[in-house]
Amino acid sequence: MKFYDCTTAPSPRRVRMFLAEKQVSIPTVQVDLRSGEQHSEAFRAINPRCTVPVLTLDDGSHLNEALAICWYLERRFPEPALFGDDPGQQARVLMWNALCEQEGFFAAAEAFRNRAKGLKGRALTGQEGYAQIEALAERGRTRVLRWMADLDARLSAVPFIAGEGFTLADITAFIAIDFAGWVKLAVPEQHRHLTRWREQVAARASASA
Amino acid sequence: MKFYDCTTAPSPRRVRMFLAEKQVSIPTVQVDLRSGEQHSEAFRAINPRCTVPVLTLDDGSHLNEALAICWYLERRFPEPALFGDDPGQQARVLMWNALCEQEGFFAAAEAFRNRAKGLKGRALTGQEGYAQIEALAERGRTRVLRWMADLDARLSAVPFIAGEGFTLADITAFIAIDFAGWVKLAVPEQHRHLTRWREQVAARASASA
Repeated sequence: MKFYDCTTAPSPRRVRMFLAEKQVSIPTVQVDLRSGEQHSEAFRAINPRCTVPVLTLDDGSHLNEALAICWYLERRFPEPALFGDDPGQQARVLMWNALCEQEGFFAAAEAFRNRAKGLKGRALTGQEGYAQIEALAERGRTRVLRWMADLDARLSAVPFIAGEGFTLADITAFIAIDFAGWVKLAVPEQHRHLTRWREQVAARASASA
Repeated sequence: MKFYDCTTAPSPRRVRMFLAEKQVSIPTVQVDLRSGEQHSEAFRAINPRCTVPVLTLDDGSHLNEALAICWYLERRFPEPALFGDDPGQQARVLMWNALCEQEGFFAAAEAFRNRAKGLKGRALTGQEGYAQIEALAERGRTRVLRWMADLDARLSAVPFIAGEGFTLADITAFIAIDFAGWVKLAVPEQHRHLTRWREQVAARASASA
């Protein structure tokens, strides 16, 4: 296996944190997103979507999407389980992971990419250019804050996002919150359950991955 | 189990088609999205996101997201496998499903919801109102067409989207293409691989679900 990473980017950090929780280390290649290496011919041959993370499997095929990569790693390195165990718990992990991805991570990306000066004409990742949409930057900010309020309510009832144990959903949410910091959004003080959870996750060794 | 459905909506159709492939039937409740039943107090108690599909499990908990629901059903009714079998194949199904959801399904939703006269102030699903963004409707159309071109290239090499067998990724893509029809987008004639695949999927009994 080979892991294509970029230590400054939030998306591959989901895989880094996942690997750190498993205490697994695999050969890693850094892709320099700041210089545009993801658009090079060499990298496009690995991932035409021009994104990291990518995981190259031993058969030479490539996975270019965080959920798929994490699922593959879960099957290869089952302990500790980060996708839940029984079918109901696994489904809850997938559900909360999707919610945190769509309402948190993607919303933070909308807020950031549609306003960042360096991303004019590249509001979406990939080979194709997309113009920034100012209204979408603003909507992204609103969505992130609503998502944080929803998570706070959820975490008033359970210790971790998908229930009793730490899972992939916590990784996605934790990194989405840090990503929201790129557009100067932080967890509002009144969200004490979300704040409690965030401090607990930040104290894990994997949080610095 | 109980399945909350709406026969006119694309999102719950993913679950209907999945169930039809499994030849499984479960108690189903229709939610009338046109009259706004998803915003009723009764339905919000089941799903605060105000969306279908929802699957209520025997322990009374609710799953409100298509991937999570399909995974749960896969574990309960393993045959025929629609998520692949070995870890590599499962990861490819998740990867292609995510691609078809993000680049196809969500893009079609952007194109539709940001322009539909009946959805002013409701450009996103849920309890919160979001204004329509005209530039996003247009960008959604562009993204759908680019996604179709990518799928056509993929299907020049393999019979089904995730490889040799029919999977959840085909369900998501097939329904996303029908959804794109709501904004008068169809598979361009020159995409003969995508057209071949679409005709094959349309011939399955589950396609009418």
